[in-house]
Amino acid sequence: MTASLTPPSLTPLFRPASIAVIGASTDATKIGGRPIDFLKQAGYRGRILPVNPNSAEVQGLPAFRSLDEVPGEVDMAVIGVPAAAVPAALEACIRKGVRAVVTFSSGYAELGEAGRLAQEALVARCRESGIRMLGPNALGVINPGDGVFVTFSASLHKNWPQPGKVAIATQSGAVGTYCFTLLADRGAGISHLITTGNEADVDVAACIDWLADDPATEVILTYLEGTRHGARLRAALEKCRAAGKPVVAMKVGASEVGAAATASHTGTLAGADAGYAALFQATGAWRAGSLSEAADIAAACTAGGLPRGKRLGVITVSGGAGAFLADASAAEGLELPALPDEAQAEIRAVVPFAGPRNPVDSTAQIANDKTALARMLEIMLRHGRFDALVGFLAFMAENEPRLLEMMPDLRRLRAAYPNTAFLFSLRAPPATRAMLLREGIATFEEPNDAVRAARALAWLGEQQGVRPVAATPAPQTLPAGALDEAACRALLAAAGIPFAPAAACTSAEAAAEAATAQGFPVVLKVLSPDLAHKSDVGGVRLNLGDAEAVRAAYAAMMAEVAAKAPAARLTGALVSPMLSGGVECVLGMTRDPVFGPLMMVGLGGVFVEVLGDVAFRLAPLTHDVALEQIRSLKGHRLLAGARGRPAVDEGALAAALVALAGFALAHPEVASVEVNPFIALPQGGFGVDAVILR
Amino acid sequence: MTASLTPPSLTPLFRPASIAVIGASTDATKIGGRPIDFLKQAGYRGRILPVNPNSAEVQGLPAFRSLDEVPGEVDMAVIGVPAAAVPAALEACIRKGVRAVVTFSSGYAELGEAGRLAQEALVARCRESGIRMLGPNALGVINPGDGVFVTFSASLHKNWPQPGKVAIATQSGAVGTYCFTLLADRGAGISHLITTGNEADVDVAACIDWLADDPATEVILTYLEGTRHGARLRAALEKCRAAGKPVVAMKVGASEVGAAATASHTGTLAGADAGYAALFQATGAWRAGSLSEAADIAAACTAGGLPRGKRLGVITVSGGAGAFLADASAAEGLELPALPDEAQAEIRAVVPFAGPRNPVDSTAQIANDKTALARMLEIMLRHGRFDALVGFLAFMAENEPRLLEMMPDLRRLRAAYPNTAFLFSLRAPPATRAMLLREGIATFEEPNDAVRAARALAWLGEQQGVRPVAATPAPQTLPAGALDEAACRALLAAAGIPFAPAAACTSAEAAAEAATAQGFPVVLKVLSPDLAHKSDVGGVRLNLGDAEAVRAAYAAMMAEVAAKAPAARLTGALVSPMLSGGVECVLGMTRDPVFGPLMMVGLGGVFVEVLGDVAFRLAPLTHDVALEQIRSLKGHRLLAGARGRPAVDEGALAAALVALAGFALAHPEVASVEVNPFIALPQGGFGVDAVILR
Repeated sequence: MTASLTPPSLTPLFRPASIAVIGASTDATKIGGRPIDFLKQAGYRGRILPVNPNSAEVQGLPAFRSLDEVPGEVDMAVIGVPAAAVPAALEACIRKGVRAVVTFSSGYAELGEAGRLAQEALVARCRESGIRMLGPNALGVINPGDGVFVTFSASLHKNWPQPGKVAIATQSGAVGTYCFTLLADRGAGISHLITTGNEADVDVAACIDWLADDPATEVILTYLEGTRHGARLRAALEKCRAAGKPVVAMKVGASEVGAAATASHTGTLAGADAGYAALFQATGAWRAGSLSEAADIAAACTAGGLPRGKRLGVITVSGGAGAFLADASAAEGLELPALPDEAQAEIRAVVPFAGPRNPVDSTAQIANDKTALARMLEIMLRHGRFDALVGFLAFMAENEPRLLEMMPDLRRLRAAYPNTAFLFSLRAPPATRAMLLREGIATFEEPNDAVRAARALAWLGEQQGVRPVAATPAPQTLPAGALDEAACRALLAAAGIPFAPAAACTSAEAAAEAATAQGFPVVLKVLSPDLAHKSDVGGVRLNLGDAEAVRAAYAAMMAEVAAKAPAARLTGALVSPMLSGGVECVLGMTRDPVFGPLMMVGLGGVFVEVLGDVAFRLAPLTHDVALEQIRSLKGHRLLAGARGRPAVDEGALAAALVALAGFALAHPEVASVEVNPFIALPQGGFGVDAVILR
Repeated sequence: MTASLTPPSLTPLFRPASIAVIGASTDATKIGGRPIDFLKQAGYRGRILPVNPNSAEVQGLPAFRSLDEVPGEVDMAVIGVPAAAVPAALEACIRKGVRAVVTFSSGYAELGEAGRLAQEALVARCRESGIRMLGPNALGVINPGDGVFVTFSASLHKNWPQPGKVAIATQSGAVGTYCFTLLADRGAGISHLITTGNEADVDVAACIDWLADDPATEVILTYLEGTRHGARLRAALEKCRAAGKPVVAMKVGASEVGAAATASHTGTLAGADAGYAALFQATGAWRAGSLSEAADIAAACTAGGLPRGKRLGVITVSGGAGAFLADASAAEGLELPALPDEAQAEIRAVVPFAGPRNPVDSTAQIANDKTALARMLEIMLRHGRFDALVGFLAFMAENEPRLLEMMPDLRRLRAAYPNTAFLFSLRAPPATRAMLLREGIATFEEPNDAVRAARALAWLGEQQGVRPVAATPAPQTLPAGALDEAACRALLAAAGIPFAPAAACTSAEAAAEAATAQGFPVVLKVLSPDLAHKSDVGGVRLNLGDAEAVRAAYAAMMAEVAAKAPAARLTGALVSPMLSGGVECVLGMTRDPVFGPLMMVGLGGVFVEVLGDVAFRLAPLTHDVALEQIRSLKGHRLLAGARGRPAVDEGALAAALVALAGFALAHPEVASVEVNPFIALPQGGFGVDAVILR
């Protein structure tokens, strides 16, 4: 609502200098008691200010009967009282000049309309007063580095968060809490765990925006069920990318793209999830398919600089595991280049029966010779120019004294190859894994997960940094009135999308003349602003070989369409040459209610119809992104010249997509566009039909 | 080599009554010392018989100077001496009448030709003497239930195997050992861990065959790099299926299918792995893609009866996790049926703000009310007829006293629904997970892994039991001499594969007459036993519209082919009607050197060429398996009638595949067959071209 004004900082929420607890309980297991208990345990160095009308002391701390009685400034207040008492508590915060509140209380939008109205009333008061609010219905904020434990999560008793480099920003408290324990298993601590609850004010996008600037945060793990502020979320993710902070994202549930579903293919194929998939693709956030994958990748991102390529070196204590990892590398699209002969000879000099090629089979000899592993790794790194090194080292780290003896060598190697990711699969307790992670070595229980991480890190490495952004064109208005195919073609052609020649005609004779001028055979299509699917009502006549055939077809077509679609306005017919060759593609746009124009490209015919082989990206598109979008199609080989066919002009296809994205941005009243087919040729390409829906 | 004789039993190897250790060391950390140390620790109740020429006592046990001096019978001997001393040790075993040996020693086939010859000499002596041998180069056998710890694996010190229901049979010691620790994390013990090393005698297939009869084993986890005995492995896996023992298999590395790669598509597409994939499909073994997946599924199989369907009930402590699990269920092809209204009302009566539909959101209330979870599960199970119940219960099991209070209710429910799998995602130490597994509840760290297990268990449940086996036809011989297209068609038609009409002609005039009789347009194809790809040399003329065109095409075609392929014998030309309609398919067979005829079906055109959309199964095929094979194609919708087209006759397509499999089995000298295209029609279907290679 006030997106155009800069909202007050979130720092008092995430790094408060003083914390009042409204509804502070003397019982450390109650919702209003736990934060005080946790803050004390965590050694929070700011002021803890329990507010309790009935007790002068709470858990050993002096308490205040009301917030008004608290001396000095209060940065943050925790509201842990039932919903009915929340408005009064918030008013007390406003009187006191509190800068941020965390509202644990439930009973708001999650319970229906009455709750939603109560929530809106709260947020309106916050906005008027310049207070930021996390919640309601939020599990709170944890910032272990500063001792901020503003939460009532019971799970902390067995799982105490350690400070670290991963920030978690999540819409689900349970998922966020579970993720931090998975991170802890992997030896990774957290800078923040922020659970946003109902997001009445502060949403995940705002958290990510703040975390992009937070010096304690190097990696962001986020869990989303949805967002209402697509542009803000996109900007926050772009800010992380520019800051070199990788984002690992999980997204569940349905978006509202379905609302844009129209009669066009595009709407149907976009699905509810396409907008989010395109968002993560556009902003370089890795989308994790599971909580453990998210934890694996986020933890690995803290181990050092991200690699930039796909060259993988693999070393294992067993030839079998090496073959397994080679299979996994192929599945992930990574390269496993063979080591040069001299490197193989050097490895054999360390362990005579080693498999020296890559995967390197160290044999169990590394258990007997404590320098053998580091010597072999050094040879691999020196010769292999690897972006990531994956090791299946099984039980090596269970012998802790031995591991500590090996660490100086490993540390030297790590320092010498800072741009190679070190990813070891082994069994070790969390403390050992934490030690290895601090030394720049990420660890994985499952060897294939180390390979998956190599791919994720390579992708993230490639995505970091500021990207060129395509310009957003000035808004334009569509001509008034209905848009038949001829009008659609003209608009899109003006925007830069080439079309096959076509002549709009209003009589059989004019059509025959136009056909004669174009050359036979031709195709005749009815023109109507009301018919998106002309062929369904007999409005397309193919392969007309002479002027007489055109005349006859014109009359027959107009009669059939008038009979089958009596309500449709018919404005004539379009004559165009019947062309063959090239590869049939589909270009499209639907307007996602959250993320704006969603650009589609697909292969035509069976690929789009049976396999749904389409790819989506957010507008605006740069030429490079459009090319990458085209190359992500499963059937891309068809464009690249499969089975001896010539490759098509992907640059021309990309240019048409970029132009379509520009058109969509310039015309906010356009709901969807479909150019189907677009014929991609070895040189250039052109659209053959177009539908624009408002 | 002696596959036709029943080899001696493996029981002395896997459940020996006495164990001699040749090369017994007084040092418990040496290769010859560890087994004695482990056997003592494990409380092995049979006789432990150290053999050491230099010591009368080994690790507190009386030792013998030679095996000959050991009194009484010896079931098994461990050979832990260097390779040079192995032959003498084996001879001592033969003299003593030892029934099985485990050879740890390395330096055999894994090191090249000399080692291979030494290994063959060993195995020949074993066969002559009726001794079974595990190894050489094997990590040994562990059977915790009987205290048999015949291994030198150093990893046991930190990971002591507990008895249980999962048998591991593995070609890689490191992978097998790692897997048992992953099983232990999941609370599952093992009946056996058998590592087969070089498989000079006992291979994984023999182990699986024995385990199928082993009363202690309920589930088999196997890891393969390859097998030389495809039929034995297939029979062993079928035996497990008939015994109701699920098999979870991992397979890596390249098979030798590539050797069969020929000029035909089939060979190219079969790839190295297709034979194994088809084997696991044929025998109902679940192929796991990672070690942790294998451990997840194997452990879950021990939790109770396998489900038979795909109805999934989901309960979570968080709505967000429910959406995540719903996404995963859809990805795994499982159903998440909504609970009926009355069930939803009952759930709301337990927890007013629960999400009652399915996924059920229990809310955090189950942490406060210790009976709420069981009451909600009871309602779900009573109304939902679920095949599997997946719960994301996060931290519930970390509060052990509370969990123990809940167990009686959970136990009652488990007993009341024995055919529903209970799969809970939660955090808990291995001991708690073991307790839950004993109670019939499998646990998973990652919630999506519980959903993956639901799918795996449903598939395994469907696969168990004896299957009808298609009859193997009597061998036949091909006619002598070369096979041109006409001969190939005639042979395959006689085997039951329908073909489009065609007339073989040896002159232009005869071709024109045949075409006139068939009706125009026709296609003309050169006949030659030497040309698999006729169109490459101008040997196909399409769409000939009258007799004159046929005559002209005949002359031109024969001249062009003779010029382009001067060495090819030309036997005339085939005339057949030019047909349109139907869906283009490909049927094929390549002979896998390990598994025999590998039957292929694919969709034609872009599907096979660009997407490699083909499916393989092993011969013989039943009609049901052939139908399932057809339905496994990615583009199957094209056959089922996509976009308003009529569905094709899948029964006729399946019948042709079954007939082709019979042909392949009857003609062992045929290396490959390809019927490409086979046109599938709404009623029936027919081949249009055929190539048979010897």
